Amino acid sequence: MEGTPREEIEKRIQRLQSYLKKEKVDACLILQNVDLFYFSGTIQRSYLFIPSEGEPLLLVQKDVERAKKESPLKTIIPIDRPKAISSILKKRRGLNRMGFEGDVLPVNQFRQLEKMLPQSEFVDISKIIKQIRMIKSPYEIDRLRDSAKILDEVFEYAKKILKPGMTEIEAESRLIELGRRRGHQGLTRMRAWNQDMINACVLSGDSGGVPTHLDVSVIGPGISPAFPQGSSYNLIQRNVPIQIDFSIAYHGYITDGARTYVIGTLPKQLMNAYEVTLEIRDEMEKIAKPGVPCSHLYHFSSQIVKKRGLEEYFIGTKKDQAPFVGHGIGLEIDEFPLLARGFSHPLEVGMVFAFEPKFIFPEIGAVALEDDYVVTESGVEKLTHVDDQIMIIGES
Amino acid sequence: MEGTPREEIEKRIQRLQSYLKKEKVDACLILQNVDLFYFSGTIQRSYLFIPSEGEPLLLVQKDVERAKKESPLKTIIPIDRPKAISSILKKRRGLNRMGFEGDVLPVNQFRQLEKMLPQSEFVDISKIIKQIRMIKSPYEIDRLRDSAKILDEVFEYAKKILKPGMTEIEAESRLIELGRRRGHQGLTRMRAWNQDMINACVLSGDSGGVPTHLDVSVIGPGISPAFPQGSSYNLIQRNVPIQIDFSIAYHGYITDGARTYVIGTLPKQLMNAYEVTLEIRDEMEKIAKPGVPCSHLYHFSSQIVKKRGLEEYFIGTKKDQAPFVGHGIGLEIDEFPLLARGFSHPLEVGMVFAFEPKFIFPEIGAVALEDDYVVTESGVEKLTHVDDQIMIIGES
Repeated sequence: MEGTPREEIEKRIQRLQSYLKKEKVDACLILQNVDLFYFSGTIQRSYLFIPSEGEPLLLVQKDVERAKKESPLKTIIPIDRPKAISSILKKRRGLNRMGFEGDVLPVNQFRQLEKMLPQSEFVDISKIIKQIRMIKSPYEIDRLRDSAKILDEVFEYAKKILKPGMTEIEAESRLIELGRRRGHQGLTRMRAWNQDMINACVLSGDSGGVPTHLDVSVIGPGISPAFPQGSSYNLIQRNVPIQIDFSIAYHGYITDGARTYVIGTLPKQLMNAYEVTLEIRDEMEKIAKPGVPCSHLYHFSSQIVKKRGLEEYFIGTKKDQAPFVGHGIGLEIDEFPLLARGFSHPLEVGMVFAFEPKFIFPEIGAVALEDDYVVTESGVEKLTHVDDQIMIIGES
Repeated sequence: MEGTPREEIEKRIQRLQSYLKKEKVDACLILQNVDLFYFSGTIQRSYLFIPSEGEPLLLVQKDVERAKKESPLKTIIPIDRPKAISSILKKRRGLNRMGFEGDVLPVNQFRQLEKMLPQSEFVDISKIIKQIRMIKSPYEIDRLRDSAKILDEVFEYAKKILKPGMTEIEAESRLIELGRRRGHQGLTRMRAWNQDMINACVLSGDSGGVPTHLDVSVIGPGISPAFPQGSSYNLIQRNVPIQIDFSIAYHGYITDGARTYVIGTLPKQLMNAYEVTLEIRDEMEKIAKPGVPCSHLYHFSSQIVKKRGLEEYFIGTKKDQAPFVGHGIGLEIDEFPLLARGFSHPLEVGMVFAFEPKFIFPEIGAVALEDDYVVTESGVEKLTHVDDQIMIIGES
């Protein structure tokens, strides 16, 4: 895989600089791996200094040779320890307000930064970074297309391997084997803290109805309180919904999807609910286009759900419903935009999101559909292509 | 899997309280998943308040029912939003110095805590937490034994599946399939920030000699600058070292190991280096016992390496050598103790560590051995049992 093209990096930095100027932030220091990759093309251990005007400096602790190969930035300076940034930056004047990644940087590392640059007041620029990363370039959308192809393949493969009597974990292990073989990087990155993101679950029947500590609606019981999410030793059963949620991170770019399978037939109540996920999805594809507020995609979904009498089961169980129906994807699985109550930002060309109408029936199971879309001039285009009907698996 | 026994949790909290008293910290708030699990038995979304004297409170946002099932703590209080902790705790007097997890808590979350509890000065207690978790109970050691059995099985399985001409990633995908099927939780937790921990790599020949941005010596090239670590599309070759590093996290507890394989025979230089890893390991097993400084295990290893003329290749390449030969393991892969220069803390009964003498030959490959040990009254006991000789794979 070639690295990120120079023009990509240049445009991203220009966008960041114009935001910094608007917010009267003199410069920023980027440390987190994903932000580093986005703005420099490398995650070799570095401090990326970006002034609101002029050339960025990539100060690399290790490995410098790899950083030089991977990053198209002009000025790459080796440093032997973090403290070196202090002497490199102290010659610069006017670094009064210094941006940093307040949503992810741990307190102790932040205090070290403050000590090294006592002349600067630090201001959180994580929202700016998220807003910039929210709009994907054609280059990024192509990377997401590559990722979606692998995801499609995983969902197709599941039809072949699911058998009654196998454990959920066994089924999942076969899917992650395929995903990794096709190039999943081994880790789906999530920005929010403490979420213990894993990229796969296979949930048979009531496994899909278990409540969770995470910012998601369907996640499963797991096998231990130490890791209370994901597939379990529950057996794949006939005539219940089998819920598969999966993500692929390929060359950094994440696609995220869900499909519902059944071996046999689904009870009528669940089949009806699944029809509603398709109705919501079809309606969304008609109305989503630049200018429509993101929150509207949540509100119209809720309205359909209400009309169909399913509001008790939509995106969580009654006591624990999440006011969202989708989220941005990119280098992280929890990017902007949120398709959520309160997120009134309008859809823009280049946004990419996962749309996930899901119904959870406690002690019965979940039915769900999740697909990934890019916002275009005229509407939305689906990145994933695998069959979206209930996947009925025959028994041979 | 049953939850953590009540006596375990009680003892851990008592130990924490005695540290808090010694350090004149009035109470602490635990938020991070792993620390939450260690001190409460659950990671349902919570704030765990532990006063230096008296009963802890587990304030649970979601899911309360799961938290009650999983945690043996007596006082579990549902809260509807984080802010509720402010009104619950403001009735308490004397919360002048409040401990928090400064090494992992992101700045923005910390600032939210400060706002909610303006009467308290916050002090970092992450070192205390690490010191407490450094000593494992017999219960925890049993959990680590369970984990080590799966790790052994993975290394045995590798002998069967490695074939010349398959890609490293293909080989790895087979191993992670087995690990997950046997109960690996899907994620190996690492405490240090920005490390993008994955639990597996298969590195053939020069893949093992690639430098890295991470706090490890052998990690591989990966397939993309977006994730520059791990197995690659390089092919498994004959007569070169094939390095497999793997970890299993089972019911939370992590074991971490490495083995060297070869299809055919290994060049003499590498075979000699491997003999030295065995020599270092055998010597360590003789001298490690309670009272010996952790750093001594690094220093005597270095001395053997020097005597054998291999100091250029030990734990990293010349320009990038790490002054350590092992690390604590438990619920996270980077626990105390460090077997490192400067970590003079003596070995104690109940410490568990991965010992990893590794040699890296740039553009040739790595030879390595990594096993897990528990410190006992009389010395150390190995948790992993799989064959530690170079694994020679015949071709059928």
